[in-house]
Amino acid sequence: MKFKVSAELEYDVKAPSTLILNIHALRTAHQTILDEKLLITPYVKIEELNAMNGENRFARLDIPDTGLVSIKYEALVDNYYEVKDHSNVEEIPVAKFDASVLPYLNPSRYCQSDKLYRLANNTFGNIRTSFEQVFAITDWIYKNVEYLSGFTNSETSAYDTVTQQAGVCRDFAHLGIALCRALTIPARYFTGYAYQLNPPDFHACFEAYLGGDWVLFDATRLIPLNGLVKIATGRDAADAAIASIFGDVYCTNIRAACQYVDEAPFKPIYYTRSIFDGVTYL
Amino acid sequence: MKFKVSAELEYDVKAPSTLILNIHALRTAHQTILDEKLLITPYVKIEELNAMNGENRFARLDIPDTGLVSIKYEALVDNYYEVKDHSNVEEIPVAKFDASVLPYLNPSRYCQSDKLYRLANNTFGNIRTSFEQVFAITDWIYKNVEYLSGFTNSETSAYDTVTQQAGVCRDFAHLGIALCRALTIPARYFTGYAYQLNPPDFHACFEAYLGGDWVLFDATRLIPLNGLVKIATGRDAADAAIASIFGDVYCTNIRAACQYVDEAPFKPIYYTRSIFDGVTYL
Amino acid sequence: MKFKVSAELEYDVKAPSTLILNIHALRTAHQTILDEKLLITPYVKIEELNAMNGENRFARLDIPDTGLVSIKYEALVDNYYEVKDHSNVEEIPVAKFDASVLPYLNPSRYCQSDKLYRLANNTFGNIRTSFEQVFAITDWIYKNVEYLSGFTNSETSAYDTVTQQAGVCRDFAHLGIALCRALTIPARYFTGYAYQLNPPDFHACFEAYLGGDWVLFDATRLIPLNGLVKIATGRDAADAAIASIFGDVYCTNIRAACQYVDEAPFKPIYYTRSIFDGVTYL
Amino acid sequence: MKFKVSAELEYDVKAPSTLILNIHALRTAHQTILDEKLLITPYVKIEELNAMNGENRFARLDIPDTGLVSIKYEALVDNYYEVKDHSNVEEIPVAKFDASVLPYLNPSRYCQSDKLYRLANNTFGNIRTSFEQVFAITDWIYKNVEYLSGFTNSETSAYDTVTQQAGVCRDFAHLGIALCRALTIPARYFTGYAYQLNPPDFHACFEAYLGGDWVLFDATRLIPLNGLVKIATGRDAADAAIASIFGDVYCTNIRAACQYVDEAPFKPIYYTRSIFDGVTYL
Repeated sequence: MKFKVSAELEYDVKAPSTLILNIHALRTAHQTILDEKLLITPYVKIEELNAMNGENRFARLDIPDTGLVSIKYEALVDNYYEVKDHSNVEEIPVAKFDASVLPYLNPSRYCQSDKLYRLANNTFGNIRTSFEQVFAITDWIYKNVEYLSGFTNSETSAYDTVTQQAGVCRDFAHLGIALCRALTIPARYFTGYAYQLNPPDFHACFEAYLGGDWVLFDATRLIPLNGLVKIATGRDAADAAIASIFGDVYCTNIRAACQYVDEAPFKPIYYTRSIFDGVTYL
Repeated sequence: MKFKVSAELEYDVKAPSTLILNIHALRTAHQTILDEKLLITPYVKIEELNAMNGENRFARLDIPDTGLVSIKYEALVDNYYEVKDHSNVEEIPVAKFDASVLPYLNPSRYCQSDKLYRLANNTFGNIRTSFEQVFAITDWIYKNVEYLSGFTNSETSAYDTVTQQAGVCRDFAHLGIALCRALTIPARYFTGYAYQLNPPDFHACFEAYLGGDWVLFDATRLIPLNGLVKIATGRDAADAAIASIFGDVYCTNIRAACQYVDEAPFKPIYYTRSIFDGVTYL
Repeated sequence: MKFKVSAELEYDVKAPSTLILNIHALRTAHQTILDEKLLITPYVKIEELNAMNGENRFARLDIPDTGLVSIKYEALVDNYYEVKDHSNVEEIPVAKFDASVLPYLNPSRYCQSDKLYRLANNTFGNIRTSFEQVFAITDWIYKNVEYLSGFTNSETSAYDTVTQQAGVCRDFAHLGIALCRALTIPARYFTGYAYQLNPPDFHACFEAYLGGDWVLFDATRLIPLNGLVKIATGRDAADAAIASIFGDVYCTNIRAACQYVDEAPFKPIYYTRSIFDGVTYL
Repeated sequence: MKFKVSAELEYDVKAPSTLILNIHALRTAHQTILDEKLLITPYVKIEELNAMNGENRFARLDIPDTGLVSIKYEALVDNYYEVKDHSNVEEIPVAKFDASVLPYLNPSRYCQSDKLYRLANNTFGNIRTSFEQVFAITDWIYKNVEYLSGFTNSETSAYDTVTQQAGVCRDFAHLGIALCRALTIPARYFTGYAYQLNPPDFHACFEAYLGGDWVLFDATRLIPLNGLVKIATGRDAADAAIASIFGDVYCTNIRAACQYVDEAPFKPIYYTRSIFDGVTYL
């Protein structure tokens, strides 16, 4: 599927600073970047870093001068996802997890799974399969947490969202991840460009490790699960921030967009309770 | 330097469970395992995992039967450390950090550097060099936090320790890491066997990334910095837990020891304010 | 109804100290102390304080010497409670609350109702009457929170218990109070001696202000609601601690008991969903 | 001293609601209201409540209609304060505190003194007198906490401010109170109109109970301590909120002012380290 994605960011730089952006579409076996450009005005040299085991592409900008800096990114991306019926998939116990999966069982800054152990097990412990547990988690979040801009901030964590019951995509994802990990289901944060997200913006959701696949889930239900272009995965938003700022810099504008540009018509996929199809991006 | 290290753990297993231990001395360019044995009674197969980019060696035990399980580990280790004078080392700005170092700037479960930004910058921001900043951090922790067993628990984080002012080596390390990261100094958690630690136990301290080296610091001042055998590094204790338990299992005993068995006499190194020698283990 | 209540406390006093005990049965219009004694060994003068608008009786002990101090309290109490059918009680809006009731709408140390606003309103907001809301709150707590000794400590608050889902009577009461206040139902902490509590101990529950009465609720369901001898009410456990210690003093023993000594047989009252009878102590 | 104080508040009322305002100058033995008016547009009946043992005057407004509601308060106040040299005042131990003072030793919603015990005692425990301890507390807060609007919110507590090191008068007061209580010095929240506060606003500071007097302290150092007109005291901001809103109401404007209208010239009092004069309002 072909998508055209774009981002525009603008920063007011008050002193020489370093910016690390995480807005590039990721290159993976299943996601090809057909065309891509990054325009910085005024021009500064960009260094691309492949950090965290290839889970993201950082662009590091060393900005020597003060003033407004404008960043425009555009890419034409071709990716595909797999849909797998998880109704009869054999579950993998922790004794068989690949070592690379283990870090995603650990609690992290915004996903304090160690503090949600009882809640997760009391609420979802009796559900038969891991797939259904994760589905029930997203369902529970969707029902209990209101999507509300401006209610939370960059310090808000899953532990807060359980009680405060409002937030944005980032908060929905963190809570989903924390609950999965508390059930010994590895889970990781996923950021991307999202088709049909309204209003257009960067999006965050999460992947759970089920039957050997990283299956995508989104408790916000705001987008079709097959309309994503992956930017990064990580333990939580601490690993996959759109921008990390080192210096006296203020963001004055941020915008992201995603168009579907394939010939084949787009057939949106949303999970429903009766079907056990899971969407996986590689 | 040769050390003989050992650990004994005992678990009461109430149901078939999986244990992931992180008690093996790490194999690195500068740390050789001359001899090593791990004895599980009753016998279960051990799988060794090299997880997290070689930062630790996990031993995974799949325990099929209930009852007491005893684990004994012994190793003869030869390692060496470097001492470097950091008084004239050129500081590396974030614009030049290797990509592998960047994750250690992020806040993590027990090291919420994002919430300590002001405290760190108000307290240590005016200190001239990064080395001296980290030294001042350990000094500040040593003076403000009392070493006290049983006061904290596995949920205690750097944010708590700032105010509660008591804890064990793990808490001292977390606070050191969080303060470093808040100053844009990458920092990571370090666990090891420690010579001259009294009473003998596993030990935790931290490394700060200074001038291109991971320099060891220990705010507890309980041990000489050159008496360590590295087990693991990680973002915080979530990554480097001595044991991660999956199942109905209770720890009934835990013990660690470290003997110096080299011919050359041991000359303990402690940092002092006037000298800028930093100890680095690879 | 006549009850014989008793308490035994023992303290190890390491330095001259002051103790404020809150173990006396309260004297109210509906609770008469027929007989009472407080024995301190070795003897120290006791000062009785009627603090906080008569909501409790403090006994202040100024202990000049070190060593073990033993405190024995015994009382024969005659009290009565009212049972009122709340199915047709007119609700009192906040515009009509008596001024003395208003403090019990405020968040307090262990009952952060301001942080539970959404949770309370999402979960209980659509329930028809305040009485039924409070009943549903106790029901919800009973189902979601496990009664578990040793899991929580003196710092645990309602905000924690929402997520951690385990605790003792004190935690159950705090969560009930916080949820009521978040729904604009005044609520206060209640401590007392409890008949048929097993094992015998001091007990905590809470009162909600409904239709002009302070109606007793207990989310633990451990005791009949008509088997209580009131010690104190307050905003939360901070106001009604069994003992407040000022100095270097350690509690070495604490015990409480409550016997029913009336001639009439004791007919236990527990709330059930279909009946709207509320128990009120004055 | 005569002051003319005024407040203007405006609310957008979306549904019939109740407002409880706490903006009236308090009537006390030492503070006389010479002239006072409260104007509500459109007119609604005002009920005045003397709540919390006379520590504040609530004005309760039952607003039946939607739309903008404007509230204007003006008062001419004559009050006086006492200045007492505390350098030789006999300290009152907890064993002698009046019962009415004891609640101000308890932790409260925004002043978790139980969690600051070590910090308070480590930092201020060795200071000779209680007066000097409180002075040192305000000094420490002034040095460590930056006055910064918009950084904190209504959930921010003393526990946060210790680490986050920024806030407004409310946060400075809460931290002062919490540290006092942790040292067994009763302390309470004080709100008032403040002369020479720039920009004009309601102000919050705190009182510590020293030698039998409630002595005023203000860690912000923004105003002379003798330029205050008391509105309320309480355990913390939960007790003395300018406005408590019950219903769907939004504040659209809030303003407060304080003029000195006495004939005698105003001689500002600020505490300095070498003098032990304490200011007390009754």
